[in-house]
Amino acid sequence: MEYTKYILDENDMPKKWYNILPDMPTPLEPPLNPATNEPIKPEELEPLFARELIKQEMSDKRYIDIPDEIKDIYKLWRPSPLYRASRLEKELGTPAKIYYKHEGVSPAGSHKPNTSIAQAYYNMKEGTERITTETGAGQWGSALSLACNYFDIECKVYMVQSSFYQKPYRKSLINLWGANVIPSPSNETQFGRKIQEDFPDTSGSLGIAISEAVEDAALNDNTKYALGSVLNHVMHHQTIIGLETQEQMKMAEDYPDVVIGCCGGGSNLAGIGLPFIKDKMDGNDLRVIGVEPSACPTLSAGEFRYDYGDMAKMTPLLKMHTLGYDFIPPAIHAGGLRYHGCSPIISQLVNEGLMEATNYHQIEVFKAGVTFARTEGFAPAPESSHAIKCAIDEAMKCRETGEEKTILFNLSGHGHFDMISYDKYFNGELGNE
Amino acid sequence: MEYTKYILDENDMPKKWYNILPDMPTPLEPPLNPATNEPIKPEELEPLFARELIKQEMSDKRYIDIPDEIKDIYKLWRPSPLYRASRLEKELGTPAKIYYKHEGVSPAGSHKPNTSIAQAYYNMKEGTERITTETGAGQWGSALSLACNYFDIECKVYMVQSSFYQKPYRKSLINLWGANVIPSPSNETQFGRKIQEDFPDTSGSLGIAISEAVEDAALNDNTKYALGSVLNHVMHHQTIIGLETQEQMKMAEDYPDVVIGCCGGGSNLAGIGLPFIKDKMDGNDLRVIGVEPSACPTLSAGEFRYDYGDMAKMTPLLKMHTLGYDFIPPAIHAGGLRYHGCSPIISQLVNEGLMEATNYHQIEVFKAGVTFARTEGFAPAPESSHAIKCAIDEAMKCRETGEEKTILFNLSGHGHFDMISYDKYFNGELGNE
Repeated sequence: MEYTKYILDENDMPKKWYNILPDMPTPLEPPLNPATNEPIKPEELEPLFARELIKQEMSDKRYIDIPDEIKDIYKLWRPSPLYRASRLEKELGTPAKIYYKHEGVSPAGSHKPNTSIAQAYYNMKEGTERITTETGAGQWGSALSLACNYFDIECKVYMVQSSFYQKPYRKSLINLWGANVIPSPSNETQFGRKIQEDFPDTSGSLGIAISEAVEDAALNDNTKYALGSVLNHVMHHQTIIGLETQEQMKMAEDYPDVVIGCCGGGSNLAGIGLPFIKDKMDGNDLRVIGVEPSACPTLSAGEFRYDYGDMAKMTPLLKMHTLGYDFIPPAIHAGGLRYHGCSPIISQLVNEGLMEATNYHQIEVFKAGVTFARTEGFAPAPESSHAIKCAIDEAMKCRETGEEKTILFNLSGHGHFDMISYDKYFNGELGNE
Repeated sequence: MEYTKYILDENDMPKKWYNILPDMPTPLEPPLNPATNEPIKPEELEPLFARELIKQEMSDKRYIDIPDEIKDIYKLWRPSPLYRASRLEKELGTPAKIYYKHEGVSPAGSHKPNTSIAQAYYNMKEGTERITTETGAGQWGSALSLACNYFDIECKVYMVQSSFYQKPYRKSLINLWGANVIPSPSNETQFGRKIQEDFPDTSGSLGIAISEAVEDAALNDNTKYALGSVLNHVMHHQTIIGLETQEQMKMAEDYPDVVIGCCGGGSNLAGIGLPFIKDKMDGNDLRVIGVEPSACPTLSAGEFRYDYGDMAKMTPLLKMHTLGYDFIPPAIHAGGLRYHGCSPIISQLVNEGLMEATNYHQIEVFKAGVTFARTEGFAPAPESSHAIKCAIDEAMKCRETGEEKTILFNLSGHGHFDMISYDKYFNGELGNE
């Protein structure tokens, strides 16, 4: 049989998210108030986040119950399938076994709804009427608009200007789900207007868009802000990916030697990786690898220190790997991986040697994505193709050594809205950042 | 619980396709040779089609075994989920129960791979090295390129010129799977060159593209032609949709009063409908409705008579509903429904009163698609939104009468490559053809 897919019964979908905070070898250092440089108090975050999300952000409970209303919506596409990539193995001529978890089956086409649904739900419960956010290529913006639509919350998305005009179709998806999306920098915030004045030629950045969304939430009634990655509560929500995968690996009667996820802010890597990091801390022998673009090598080359999450220095300072809050990476086509910082959880795990990081240039990543599409069928997002490239490299090492390793990666999303990037790849117009 | 999805176990996936030919109340009239107007002999079709496909086209066996190699690939996304659309029901305030089968989960994003995989497989078995086809918006072209890639067959797609330039992203998908796609009319065929000369301003049509693909297959060695709809063997392959759905309706302990599919060439409607038509002929009380665009109302307004399948009169004459082989419909955004003819099986079932047909204008169809996306989450293809509109109408009738009918429709594909059409809808730029 060429394909094997492992489908977990809906009733066996995990009922709790995993929170790695109490299991961290050393406790995370606290976020700092950007005005005082003092550890931030939970109540100081309330203008921006729902109280339950702040509680989860700092929780020491190892497992957090998933409310029924969230599970009901998860079940629209979850449990997501795990596949054995037999055709890819055959194409590579490797003795390694390659598995991938497919998160592109969600309505928004990526793993992002795992947390957007949860964030919108808790906000709805606490009476939030409007949520602001930023988005790069639109994966997060579309996922949040989907979620806000379910809970009748108004949603405003500040979309990085270059993506707004060059990759307009996730913007269309945001409109389809009823949210309001505008290019950033905009003239609707003080910071946006300042950037427009100071840098009239800018095509925007995630750091700028975050500043705008945060300012909007801080200044408007009944409005909160939502972040699609980086923060602890986002990492918790995404662990449903890895928890499901652990059950599915049991169905396959196998267990990974290597677990791979692409890494921008860290939510996808945390999703597939953290439950396996727990296994590793419990004594299992395995590697967990985060894969970055060489154009934005936060974990690979950034410093591990306190830094701001946004360009206007409005967000709390986080202890994380960072390329500098004002770093603007080249316009690579994996827009979801163009962030100067990274999740403090992921950053510290890398720092402590529990996770590894590697990085690839754009063209070899697209080549890997095409190999995957031509063997397994599904068209991957450029972000996910980073994980594919690393999985292929690990499998090729096995071909040399003869080892029958088990390699697992997360296919974080499909590439249906990235066809313009594939066109450029095929036309030889893609830079090798 | 807001959502319920019914997942059939992989091992319970149907092992045979249903062939309705031996169950037709009156036998189908034979296809005619376009040169002689005489019933065509099987061997006369061999320059275009694999022998096994010709055999299936004329088979009197009620069930046709699905070869293991095809089942293996089907299992990449099959059995596809059946959903209860509870949020849509709630939004409509209807006592009706609405179910939908989701065929957009295939790698190509529609039901088309159900037959493209089968056609490529049988061609591979018989030594075909190259397959030609036509495509409108690209659903079929991408599905065939996916299939040919699996079986290492070269694939050449003649894509209707207007779509090639205006909706380029399914073209990108065709490239991603390694096929060769060119705009039609092209200068690579005699008929294409003639059309370019006679109608220099034409933006192409399916009828023209079919003529080019057929000419290419007829004149080149080891080359066959593949059609994504209309023909009997295509209808057989698609019945896996309805056969799965029948099992899933049993899981739901329910049975449809109305079965709805959009209808262009008829393959999607046949897929969801024919197994239920068998039930109807066996005495079950239900309606099966084909939904067309008002701009191309083949079943609703076309004549039931022999006609050509293509503009150059190269294909056999089929007894079917037709708007005339030279009919070129307005450029509506449901490109998959812009065909002048329809499946002889579907046509005759409509003619005999076993199936019904209805049609809608473009804007009300998009409105229904948006309602679906905002309640159920998935972004539907404009083709599929025709079925959604009809399901909504049937559900609204139930609100008036208080009847608790069970309504089933096929969501034939996702709309990820149709965002430009949604943009036009939201911007008020969509014509109401």
